[in-house]
Amino acid sequence: MVVTIKDVARVANVAPSTVSRVIANNPRISEQTKRRVKDVMDQLGYYPNLQARSLVAKSTQTIGVIMPNSAYHAFRNPFFPEVLRGISMNAHESKYGIYLSTGSTEEEIHEEVLSMVMGRRVDGIVLLYSRVNDRTMTYLEESGFPFTVVGRPSINEGRITYVDNDNIFITKQVTNYLIELGHKNIAFVGGNLDFVVTFDRLNGYNMALKEAGLPVNEVYFVHEKFVNEKGKDAIRSLMEIEDPPTALVTQDDLMAYEMISHLETLNIRVPDDISIVSFNNLSLSEHSKPPLTSVDIGTFQLGHVATKCLIEKIENPETLPKRITIPTKLIERKSCAIKK
Amino acid sequence: MVVTIKDVARVANVAPSTVSRVIANNPRISEQTKRRVKDVMDQLGYYPNLQARSLVAKSTQTIGVIMPNSAYHAFRNPFFPEVLRGISMNAHESKYGIYLSTGSTEEEIHEEVLSMVMGRRVDGIVLLYSRVNDRTMTYLEESGFPFTVVGRPSINEGRITYVDNDNIFITKQVTNYLIELGHKNIAFVGGNLDFVVTFDRLNGYNMALKEAGLPVNEVYFVHEKFVNEKGKDAIRSLMEIEDPPTALVTQDDLMAYEMISHLETLNIRVPDDISIVSFNNLSLSEHSKPPLTSVDIGTFQLGHVATKCLIEKIENPETLPKRITIPTKLIERKSCAIKK
Repeated sequence: MVVTIKDVARVANVAPSTVSRVIANNPRISEQTKRRVKDVMDQLGYYPNLQARSLVAKSTQTIGVIMPNSAYHAFRNPFFPEVLRGISMNAHESKYGIYLSTGSTEEEIHEEVLSMVMGRRVDGIVLLYSRVNDRTMTYLEESGFPFTVVGRPSINEGRITYVDNDNIFITKQVTNYLIELGHKNIAFVGGNLDFVVTFDRLNGYNMALKEAGLPVNEVYFVHEKFVNEKGKDAIRSLMEIEDPPTALVTQDDLMAYEMISHLETLNIRVPDDISIVSFNNLSLSEHSKPPLTSVDIGTFQLGHVATKCLIEKIENPETLPKRITIPTKLIERKSCAIKK
Repeated sequence: MVVTIKDVARVANVAPSTVSRVIANNPRISEQTKRRVKDVMDQLGYYPNLQARSLVAKSTQTIGVIMPNSAYHAFRNPFFPEVLRGISMNAHESKYGIYLSTGSTEEEIHEEVLSMVMGRRVDGIVLLYSRVNDRTMTYLEESGFPFTVVGRPSINEGRITYVDNDNIFITKQVTNYLIELGHKNIAFVGGNLDFVVTFDRLNGYNMALKEAGLPVNEVYFVHEKFVNEKGKDAIRSLMEIEDPPTALVTQDDLMAYEMISHLETLNIRVPDDISIVSFNNLSLSEHSKPPLTSVDIGTFQLGHVATKCLIEKIENPETLPKRITIPTKLIERKSCAIKK
């Protein structure tokens, strides 16, 4: 029989709210009353403490969510709140809470994951990124702890459950879209070679260029760091090369907005002088100037499905590893034009 | 002396990684090895389980963050990720994790808070809203559990630590700004009378109108629900009254964007036909069309300071209650014009 607060209150001859306050160690309750209530708790075997309970049940009803860098940085980009919306919806339906990582370096994040797993703070983990040769993912895989990934793992792909877009296909499609508008000089902007997604997208981009008989030019690969740190200078030097690009495949809408602002100060107009297509289709992309042509990657669904798979795995450890592909869609707006 | 994984590994004569795998109950470790490692753990008094440890230390190193509705809904608005950035930065610096509420109704959220407090899932709580007569806040106050509020409490204001803007002052200032541009018919759009912030802002708005000798017209108060649910119809009926407003004080940038879209379909142009000033100054407000005049409420700081105060309170229960005011600033862009 489960002992409740009401049982304790009845036996100790106090109100249930007094029992709650004793549990919360409220200073307004006398030491004498605290003593009496606690004795009754012991006597009846009442465990107010969910942690104590979860030690018995071996469940925390909590999901750990790991971001690629600190929430402080990650939440600058609306991708993360959107993917968290998907996670929350599923967690909420299955009555799980969410434990969010706050680490900012790879080292700190790894420590947090160790503490979540070894300390049984959570029942399972959603990794919101896939880094190349990520030791955190390797650790999770080796330890046998339930986890799922948003993104394609760089190791043991067949043994890990993950949710991803078909990044090769969609980037090829996006690049073809620009080629069909007559563009020949197309840059790939904002790639970060630490992450698997960049390799897949580069792959699709290169495939489209090759099939169209266009040369693959290394100068047209602009690293994310270069865009973030040098900002305007990065764009200026890209536009000052001998054959400047007339179209950009940008990895993220926020970056595209920034590019557009910088290009404006250089008197280069979008889409008249340069076309931009981007990824993520942030909800504000339709309000930007010009409205952005962007790939809807199903961000909400990525989080939602990864969480669904995780909870399946938590509740049934025999669940087989799987890959789920979330469909993408190119949303045409006004940031691309026919090459003049 | 603290017993570490390495100690256990040495005595059990296995690699430290094997100990980790035993803790994680990895199926690839033989039962025999598991038995031996576990015996050594018992023998040395090693507690791998942070929950077990936190039962002893009475600390979870975790902060509960409570949103006014489910993350699923809340994260639609960039205010919440931004306030979470502030919370995360402070939590991370002080080595706290974040436990996020996922409840969607008042009832569910209340249950979650009860479970966090009574189950000692967290060391303290940040409430990201202040509801009128909120029983969750009342419960937290009565239980003596450490918590802070982003927003002004409707009860026991002097006994609760909270972080807020001077909403009366800033809304008076914003309304005066529109009055100085020659506007006389100014609507207050998007208010929700469930929240204390609405009363403070209405107060400032009314004060400005009264001081300028302008009548306070009830038709000019448009409830948030009305905007959200009826959308375009709500705006149409507002613009079809006898003296339609020529300026709007909108409670949130996202709502302002929506208003602008709807007004466009009615052939009412911003700012030529109607001026809009808004709150929150989302990072994308400068990219919207037109760029939005909006109040920077210091969202990041609201979260950051509320967390700082909470951790102070957790670590020193004698900390006195206080109110901290985060400064605001009207950022003039291009959504307001002189009344024609």
